[in-house]
Amino acid sequence: MPVYKIVVHGGAGAIRQEDMSPELESAYKKGLADALDAGYTVLEKAGTAIDAVKAASISLEDNILFNAGRGSVFGKDGNQEMDASIMDGKTLMAGAVSAVRNVRNPVELAYIIMTKSQHVMLSGQGALEFAQLHGLPTEPDEYFFSAFRYEQWKQMQDSDTFAIDHNVKLQGQSHTEGLLHSNKKFGTIGAVAVDIQGDIAAATSTGGMTNKQWGRVGDSPIIGAGTYANNKTCAISCTGHGEPFIRAVTAYDVSCLMEYKGLSLEDAMHTVVHDKLLKIDAEGGMIGVDAKGNAAMVFNSEGMYRGVRGSTGKNEIAIYK
Amino acid sequence: MPVYKIVVHGGAGAIRQEDMSPELESAYKKGLADALDAGYTVLEKAGTAIDAVKAASISLEDNILFNAGRGSVFGKDGNQEMDASIMDGKTLMAGAVSAVRNVRNPVELAYIIMTKSQHVMLSGQGALEFAQLHGLPTEPDEYFFSAFRYEQWKQMQDSDTFAIDHNVKLQGQSHTEGLLHSNKKFGTIGAVAVDIQGDIAAATSTGGMTNKQWGRVGDSPIIGAGTYANNKTCAISCTGHGEPFIRAVTAYDVSCLMEYKGLSLEDAMHTVVHDKLLKIDAEGGMIGVDAKGNAAMVFNSEGMYRGVRGSTGKNEIAIYK
Repeated sequence: MPVYKIVVHGGAGAIRQEDMSPELESAYKKGLADALDAGYTVLEKAGTAIDAVKAASISLEDNILFNAGRGSVFGKDGNQEMDASIMDGKTLMAGAVSAVRNVRNPVELAYIIMTKSQHVMLSGQGALEFAQLHGLPTEPDEYFFSAFRYEQWKQMQDSDTFAIDHNVKLQGQSHTEGLLHSNKKFGTIGAVAVDIQGDIAAATSTGGMTNKQWGRVGDSPIIGAGTYANNKTCAISCTGHGEPFIRAVTAYDVSCLMEYKGLSLEDAMHTVVHDKLLKIDAEGGMIGVDAKGNAAMVFNSEGMYRGVRGSTGKNEIAIYK
Repeated sequence: MPVYKIVVHGGAGAIRQEDMSPELESAYKKGLADALDAGYTVLEKAGTAIDAVKAASISLEDNILFNAGRGSVFGKDGNQEMDASIMDGKTLMAGAVSAVRNVRNPVELAYIIMTKSQHVMLSGQGALEFAQLHGLPTEPDEYFFSAFRYEQWKQMQDSDTFAIDHNVKLQGQSHTEGLLHSNKKFGTIGAVAVDIQGDIAAATSTGGMTNKQWGRVGDSPIIGAGTYANNKTCAISCTGHGEPFIRAVTAYDVSCLMEYKGLSLEDAMHTVVHDKLLKIDAEGGMIGVDAKGNAAMVFNSEGMYRGVRGSTGKNEIAIYK
């Protein structure tokens, strides 16, 4: 019986239930469900894993709650520089983009780099020009998470739609404000999938760190660190403190533990997240699948926005430990 | 008895003796010897591996023959965008820079990012600003390999210093011109070292691909792809066709084969270069050391500019198979 499965994440970090209102929690869960639906729709029509992770990631990039695409945070200079990567476990082809602005869906740009260029990674203005050459949608600065939009968001907090409890403050901030800031600090979105053919794929996208400067690049656009996929082993998308994730070559390490040491997907992910990453004070997590249809979501932080939907057809969505 | 060792490379590719004049060959060998001397001088004074690879790499970056630093090639827009990375096997700290302009020694900038910032990777204008903040030397465009400098180089070909045979043409080009172009296409420099304490380190630097566009980033600034160092396993610097080297997470793969499968440094390097890379049509090579003082230089292309000097004190330099 063919197995297909989509797994998504919307970032990991100090995410605590006591800091979250029921309304905000519902909004995050709906965002994750929408992304699962987008990916699942591809898979149930016998689409490919690579198309499924792209569709799920685009859904998360278009959702202002998550730090990627539309919801990207501000860098030091007041601009949003976005990173993304994608890898196809069947072909071992990959695409990545760093420090790109105004592209609506950086994960789609990573896909176009993979499929339409001879390169793996493009960056900055050149990456934007490549996106325009291939007709990818761009958006004005105002489209992305902006001071204007943040004010809108705060007004929504007072509306019926998002009735956030303003009585409890975190360092002088409302719950939601504090959450948005703290989560977005290392916020990332990602998706992994296995399709009906047994092919797997992974994608990751981020708006970077709040107040980041000097053109900082994290692990999200680094093949091997934030994203890796290989039908022989696993498809992995990471979220967490980018610097130690780069130094630990995190996503590929899971693959090597499976290929060279014979570990299962779940054991390899546990070894990396709860042993190797903790030893270097690296907070975060990852989602993974293998070609047999196994899936896992592992993190060492207080929470990780995450969800999985397999061919049984039921969404399983969670936020906290 | 304490063992220390420095290994350098100056790029790999279609480097054939029949295309090379004796004078040009001597110039390349002198460049490699100068780099070995720079690294060895650090090591014999009981300096660290990280300082040795930095010194050797700076020597190669300052030499116009090699595609890094001063000798960087032109991108599509007529500018030189440079990439570099460095990793300390003792601390597992790393620094990397991509698409930076006008910094005299990108490998030194990678070192400063590793030691003076909380980040691993900086890119573009932000990376240049970080270099200036820390007082790193910058140079005007004219310093780097330019049309002017290329004319100078061609004039040198006719002088007594570099009496190149102009009679044999490669597709209408003189030997030297053809060589400079073909070698520079994927040209890279790098160094690995083991010091008297048994600590190891690796560094890689490049001026990128001739005529590259869209802000293309290769493997050289990617920790895990172009560069990796870990006292437990190996220090590796790669050179070759950057895209498949990224997809194969080449440098870290050697480390994983040693850590998880128990392969020796040389066996792991051979497996990656002659088996895994060849299967994905990836041309190039790598240099490596381990903490016991073993060293290897492995490539699947026609040649690799390379050299090693151990505590026995003798330079071993080679170019062809």
